[in-house]
Amino acid sequence: MKLIIAIIRPDRLSEVKAALFRAGVTGMTLTPVSGHGGEREVVHSYRAERVLLEFHDKVRIEMACSEPFVEPTIQAILEAARTGGVGDGKIFVQPLEQVIRIRTGERDNSAL
Amino acid sequence: MKLIIAIIRPDRLSEVKAALFRAGVTGMTLTPVSGHGGEREVVHSYRAERVLLEFHDKVRIEMACSEPFVEPTIQAILEAARTGGVGDGKIFVQPLEQVIRIRTGERDNSAL
Amino acid sequence: MKLIIAIIRPDRLSEVKAALFRAGVTGMTLTPVSGHGGEREVVHSYRAERVLLEFHDKVRIEMACSEPFVEPTIQAILEAARTGGVGDGKIFVQPLEQVIRIRTGERDNSAL
Ligand SMILES: Nc1ncnc2c1ncn2[C@@H]1O[C@H](COP(=O)(O)OP(=O)(O)OP(=O)(O)O)[C@@H](O)[C@H]1O
Ligand SMILES: Nc1ncnc2c1ncn2[C@@H]1O[C@H](COP(=O)(O)OP(=O)(O)OP(=O)(O)O)[C@@H](O)[C@H]1O
Ligand SMILES: Nc1ncnc2c1ncn2[C@@H]1O[C@H](COP(=O)(O)OP(=O)(O)OP(=O)(O)O)[C@@H](O)[C@H]1O
Ligand SMILES: [Mg+2]
Ligand SMILES: [Mg+2]
Ligand SMILES: [Mg+2]
Repeated sequence: MKLIIAIIRPDRLSEVKAALFRAGVTGMTLTPVSGHGGEREVVHSYRAERVLLEFHDKVRIEMACSEPFVEPTIQAILEAARTGGVGDGKIFVQPLEQVIRIRTGERDNSAL
Repeated sequence: MKLIIAIIRPDRLSEVKAALFRAGVTGMTLTPVSGHGGEREVVHSYRAERVLLEFHDKVRIEMACSEPFVEPTIQAILEAARTGGVGDGKIFVQPLEQVIRIRTGERDNSAL
Repeated sequence: MKLIIAIIRPDRLSEVKAALFRAGVTGMTLTPVSGHGGEREVVHSYRAERVLLEFHDKVRIEMACSEPFVEPTIQAILEAARTGGVGDGKIFVQPLEQVIRIRTGERDNSAL
């Protein structure tokens, strides 16, 4: 099992949700976040110059899934989240050792 | 060490906090999130039918703990978060390689 | 690759951002969170005494980085986030198996 985290543009969220639904993703958790992805703004003030890290509103999507769903989930996000401009976002894949459904106590693949 | 993530109903939060306290959990981080757990709503509009993913407010609890605390923490959450209805939530357990307490610089089990 | 999570005091955020920038961190995701780190408050009410877990506003910083950046990133956070008082925060390091840049489809170290 893996935990997939995607950071995307808020205005791509409904496309991404629809693509995840078509890819068979049945659960996800969304968090509004603020992100920096390398953009810099040079601020000029009286006799000085400062570099500021720019931050933009993003949405963080967290999805636990079983191995066969990892690559289809990544493809769904890539297609639906991409605009081609800088700041389209990132996907992270992490190991996941246990999953438990609270209602039933089921564990791991039966809980997904 | 493990990182335990639990997604629960907001109205179970105070019960869950109390149960975690009794289980000896000494640190946790809470985030308000929005979640989807398989529920679908069929939306009928003029000559069409669309499937929408439902989203509900949830609370995400993140807890770093040492191995002996993993199972008691899971049990505490299961007992306090369960209502028996769909949407009670999920628990995820991930590997955790390092923990550092910022105040002292202590690492790993001494930092928990 | 690793995923580093730091929970810090909101009023240390701009110092921490500047230190991360100097340490060469090029991407990060911020979430406003609420945290408990062992503090307890004893509440006295009529003929009873209850222990409450205190919660404080914190900022959660999530950074994906390659192995050589892990220790410099930790040092940058330790120096910039520390006040010496309880509640300075925690750093967690987790394994990270894949990173994908959505704009280009690049993977892993080329995506960082
Ligand atoms: N290394 C990282 N760690 C954590 N979050 C990141 C990282 N890089 C990017 N992010 C998150 O993803 C969001 C979008 O990043 P962004 O798309 O700018 O990545 P990028 O690698 O700079 O790609 P691009 O060159 O297309 O801009 C950021 O605002 C931030 O929230
Ligand atoms: N696979 C998943 N990945 C990430 N978050 C999830 C996942 N499944 C559920 N969640 C989170 O947990 C919340 C509650 O999920 P829910 O309890 O509906 O899970 P479920 O598996 O559908 O169980 P039930 O059958 O009892 O409804 C969701 O709103 C979402 O935030
Ligand atoms: N075990 C933990 N799991 C998840 N989050 C934690 C944990 N411990 C602390 N945190 C987060 O870090 C924040 C700051 O914690 P804090 O600095 O009080 O840690 P501490 O170990 O109690 O150190 P100190 O003794 O300096 O207070 C908490 O409010 C919480 O958000
Ligand atoms: Mg960028
Ligand atoms: Mg459900
Ligand atoms: Mg503390």
